[in-house]
Amino acid sequence: MEGPVFIENISNSFSVSSGITQVYHTRRSKFQTIHVVETIPWGRCLLLDGHLQSSERDEFVYHENLVHPILLSHPNPKTVFIGGGGEGSTLREILKHKSVERVVMVDIDEECVDVSKKFLTHHHNGAYEDPRVHVIIDDAKAWLENSEEKFDIIIQDLCDPVDDTPSQLLYTQKYYQTCKARLNPGGALITQDGPAGVTSHNMVFTAIHHTLSTVFPKVQSWKTAIPSYVDEWGFSIASTDDKYDVANMSSSQIDQLISERIGNPDTLKWYDGEIHSGMFKLPKVIRKALQEENRVITEDNLLFIP
Amino acid sequence: MEGPVFIENISNSFSVSSGITQVYHTRRSKFQTIHVVETIPWGRCLLLDGHLQSSERDEFVYHENLVHPILLSHPNPKTVFIGGGGEGSTLREILKHKSVERVVMVDIDEECVDVSKKFLTHHHNGAYEDPRVHVIIDDAKAWLENSEEKFDIIIQDLCDPVDDTPSQLLYTQKYYQTCKARLNPGGALITQDGPAGVTSHNMVFTAIHHTLSTVFPKVQSWKTAIPSYVDEWGFSIASTDDKYDVANMSSSQIDQLISERIGNPDTLKWYDGEIHSGMFKLPKVIRKALQEENRVITEDNLLFIP
Amino acid sequence: MEGPVFIENISNSFSVSSGITQVYHTRRSKFQTIHVVETIPWGRCLLLDGHLQSSERDEFVYHENLVHPILLSHPNPKTVFIGGGGEGSTLREILKHKSVERVVMVDIDEECVDVSKKFLTHHHNGAYEDPRVHVIIDDAKAWLENSEEKFDIIIQDLCDPVDDTPSQLLYTQKYYQTCKARLNPGGALITQDGPAGVTSHNMVFTAIHHTLSTVFPKVQSWKTAIPSYVDEWGFSIASTDDKYDVANMSSSQIDQLISERIGNPDTLKWYDGEIHSGMFKLPKVIRKALQEENRVITEDNLLFIP
Amino acid sequence: MEGPVFIENISNSFSVSSGITQVYHTRRSKFQTIHVVETIPWGRCLLLDGHLQSSERDEFVYHENLVHPILLSHPNPKTVFIGGGGEGSTLREILKHKSVERVVMVDIDEECVDVSKKFLTHHHNGAYEDPRVHVIIDDAKAWLENSEEKFDIIIQDLCDPVDDTPSQLLYTQKYYQTCKARLNPGGALITQDGPAGVTSHNMVFTAIHHTLSTVFPKVQSWKTAIPSYVDEWGFSIASTDDKYDVANMSSSQIDQLISERIGNPDTLKWYDGEIHSGMFKLPKVIRKALQEENRVITEDNLLFIP
Repeated sequence: MEGPVFIENISNSFSVSSGITQVYHTRRSKFQTIHVVETIPWGRCLLLDGHLQSSERDEFVYHENLVHPILLSHPNPKTVFIGGGGEGSTLREILKHKSVERVVMVDIDEECVDVSKKFLTHHHNGAYEDPRVHVIIDDAKAWLENSEEKFDIIIQDLCDPVDDTPSQLLYTQKYYQTCKARLNPGGALITQDGPAGVTSHNMVFTAIHHTLSTVFPKVQSWKTAIPSYVDEWGFSIASTDDKYDVANMSSSQIDQLISERIGNPDTLKWYDGEIHSGMFKLPKVIRKALQEENRVITEDNLLFIP
Repeated sequence: MEGPVFIENISNSFSVSSGITQVYHTRRSKFQTIHVVETIPWGRCLLLDGHLQSSERDEFVYHENLVHPILLSHPNPKTVFIGGGGEGSTLREILKHKSVERVVMVDIDEECVDVSKKFLTHHHNGAYEDPRVHVIIDDAKAWLENSEEKFDIIIQDLCDPVDDTPSQLLYTQKYYQTCKARLNPGGALITQDGPAGVTSHNMVFTAIHHTLSTVFPKVQSWKTAIPSYVDEWGFSIASTDDKYDVANMSSSQIDQLISERIGNPDTLKWYDGEIHSGMFKLPKVIRKALQEENRVITEDNLLFIP
Repeated sequence: MEGPVFIENISNSFSVSSGITQVYHTRRSKFQTIHVVETIPWGRCLLLDGHLQSSERDEFVYHENLVHPILLSHPNPKTVFIGGGGEGSTLREILKHKSVERVVMVDIDEECVDVSKKFLTHHHNGAYEDPRVHVIIDDAKAWLENSEEKFDIIIQDLCDPVDDTPSQLLYTQKYYQTCKARLNPGGALITQDGPAGVTSHNMVFTAIHHTLSTVFPKVQSWKTAIPSYVDEWGFSIASTDDKYDVANMSSSQIDQLISERIGNPDTLKWYDGEIHSGMFKLPKVIRKALQEENRVITEDNLLFIP
Repeated sequence: MEGPVFIENISNSFSVSSGITQVYHTRRSKFQTIHVVETIPWGRCLLLDGHLQSSERDEFVYHENLVHPILLSHPNPKTVFIGGGGEGSTLREILKHKSVERVVMVDIDEECVDVSKKFLTHHHNGAYEDPRVHVIIDDAKAWLENSEEKFDIIIQDLCDPVDDTPSQLLYTQKYYQTCKARLNPGGALITQDGPAGVTSHNMVFTAIHHTLSTVFPKVQSWKTAIPSYVDEWGFSIASTDDKYDVANMSSSQIDQLISERIGNPDTLKWYDGEIHSGMFKLPKVIRKALQEENRVITEDNLLFIP
């Protein structure tokens, strides 16, 4: 490697370097350092506090996982709340669902939203202009605590839990209780869970799963490799309904729902019934870790990615 | 990052750096540069020509994928040929199968085998001492062409196809024809296929799959994330029998076979019936690429990882 | 280090990384890859083929060394030829000398000149607008060979001699013979000589000095640390006059000439009589290497920085 | 760069990477992290808290500067105190002076001394065995405060002043007062002063010079490029005698003293009368900074390299 690169420290002892050709934005906002760079291996990328959040080449994998399984497993999702989500790709995917009438997105960092609108047009693809979308600049936790509005779906599209960052309180038991109280009957919440590979799942993935299961009657988790994250990434759906069972929806059921609710299946690049039918199958080592996990993340006992 | 690290160039525009505490071996053999280093994130690692081949922390994922699906899907595997395999972990996994009577491993690089025996005891775990094992220092291609021995299983445990390296001719149509001629009736071959993630599968994975399918009546492929490889990795099983169908073996069938042929299922850390039942489900984007692939790798038309 | 950086490979086994905040230009011209980046440690920098040529924070050291000793040691320099010099800082320094009436700068790479005019205003500081300046886009060697114009001073402001680059023929005995033929009586040539530190002087510095001494009756060399080059840098003045002796000009003589020919001494930041009086004193190890050097760089026997 | 390297962070925004072939030692002692590595560009190196202290290829430059000018400018140096100096190269140079009868070296880190004895034989070259040498493991400051012994020469061979490190109090006015009280009449102290290049001299170099000048009647400073330090390095001699004038000793005077007191001048690789006669000449920008400096480093007002 030589020339201009972006170095991301994945941990104290592991970093990755991507060739870049342009730095569009590099500034510390009120909450975090925001970089938008044009990389050679991943296209245009957003990085917060030095960590890659979204790459042009593979963000579709993350966002299709975050949005479609939960929306398709709900009988009729009309209202969606997004905690975080500043770059707009989660909005873009949600708006593909014809049933959705209202999306409230609460992101704490106005500068991040503005930078995304300006530089990440590939990512949001105009979603911010849709009349169903309502963007609020606030702390998601404070907003949910002070609101009386209820939602069918809550999507946690947050930075990983890292010490001294805005999202650190949004992976706790108390926050999940707040979310549960803001869900309509039959509603469900999804959160990204951080790294979930065979060597990284016990950082926070299994603990978030367990914390959710102390609040919700049913929690189901899976993981998907995101190349630009250099790991597999965890997702957990927590439902207010103990009969909820997204993991066992059949391939044909998913494909039919995509056809009915979204329309042209080519709208999605990664997700369909076939991949759905395999993605909840986890390797032994991770199933074992999920079973043995007993950490509960609370405001007094936070858990961070090292 | 600071202090001693190992930098691996994954491509011209993407590299990874791992903290290290010791360099056990660093020397160019007759065929390749061999490094054995103690890394902080991955434990002890073997690297050939700068590319990580095997890490103490996650090599089990690669080797369980390479060995158990093919051996369990064969009715009674007694004889196994390994092309490459110098570090000894493939041997270690094969020897867990009670049915196996003879393993012939042909690796071109004696220095690599010797370095592995000396420094990678965790990896081979004494497998080289087993009387069923026969290690031959030779070019796998030349040996197979000149041999009359036939095998139930052929395992290609090779470095990726890279220009001007010993393994470059071992991913070609002609080599696969040689292999087919050295398989017993009902026999099957497995090869690692290189990177197979959503952004990397069209480097060589889909082309190797397609090349195999010009020689064998049945080819089935999957991928698995290997954290230390910073990508998902492809595997393809090619069978001489067109009714062969490893992809549709049921979870309970696999678990029963593990019990009968290996014994204690705790011998395996990653693989069992549950993960088997999901692992052949590929995302849309990769299924589409497999269908559309039409490159055939021949000696006159080699294909390399860029 | 994390975030955006520029990595420069100084050699196969030594590289430096500078934090950057902006990439102004990154493109391969007809002759070389041109980068202009805003770095944190060095300010705005020009890099050619990945090698730093000029940094906002310390280019004054290089350019004051390249221009003032030779011009002040000439009795009355009116005409100056620059080989290379695209960024314009050498022009800027030359134009400080009231005696100079005409400067011909021949640079091979128009894109480099244009990029410098656009992004390196700090460096050229408007020098390109001076009516005494004549910029010609051509190969300096070809232009000198085909010209009949003679100069008082020739300044070689070139990239280092590296294999397969435009400047590789501009450090040869033949080229120096061409230059000598284009100097007026009493004229002198200066070239930058590449790295000249205690561990790097025998790459090319001593050989360039020796090659010059096969053509010119008097050659005097020195070195100066340039922080952004991460080494000391060599300079050699070759004179057509064997009584020429820049190395032994006194401190007061230099200061008086600066006053007479340039005016306000504060125009210069690094150079004056005091530093001049010490800068030709070299450490033993380098004096010994200069004495023992016997390599002559010819077109048939080029010498490159490894 | 690829393969094993050592990364040194020179500052927050500048790092250097050297290829390595071996890690001999990597451990945190009671005081600091100690690395001994075999590098390709610099040979065997000692690094403390990640910063290169001494490289096999160029340590002679640092140590000849640290030892010979001060010893040769003293009329008859018999006793020498070294603060720090664990690697043993300073000892090695001092012992070349026939007049020296006793050297007391006080280093705080026994593990650093032991590691140096074991792995840096090239550096100390057996100096630890000389009967004139007395090694004491202690804090140099505490030892000098509690001792009544006086010395002709005090040599500060310390790590740079960095926050929260053992050497942070050894660059203060108070410490220099302690040293002065432990010098015999006519005695002198030398300290390395940290980076002293055209872009780095105002970090600590000029402030150490100024702090010394508040304690001693005469302080003279110079700088020398040390390639493996990727900068020029400062040295200051402070004398108890206001008529002391090392900077103006003539070339022939130095050469004669080398001959008388050391013997064969080939014992030294970098230093002799010629280089001495130029090395105190500083560029304008640094002379100006020395004149304008008014920071005094005290225990209440420490100064660190950023």
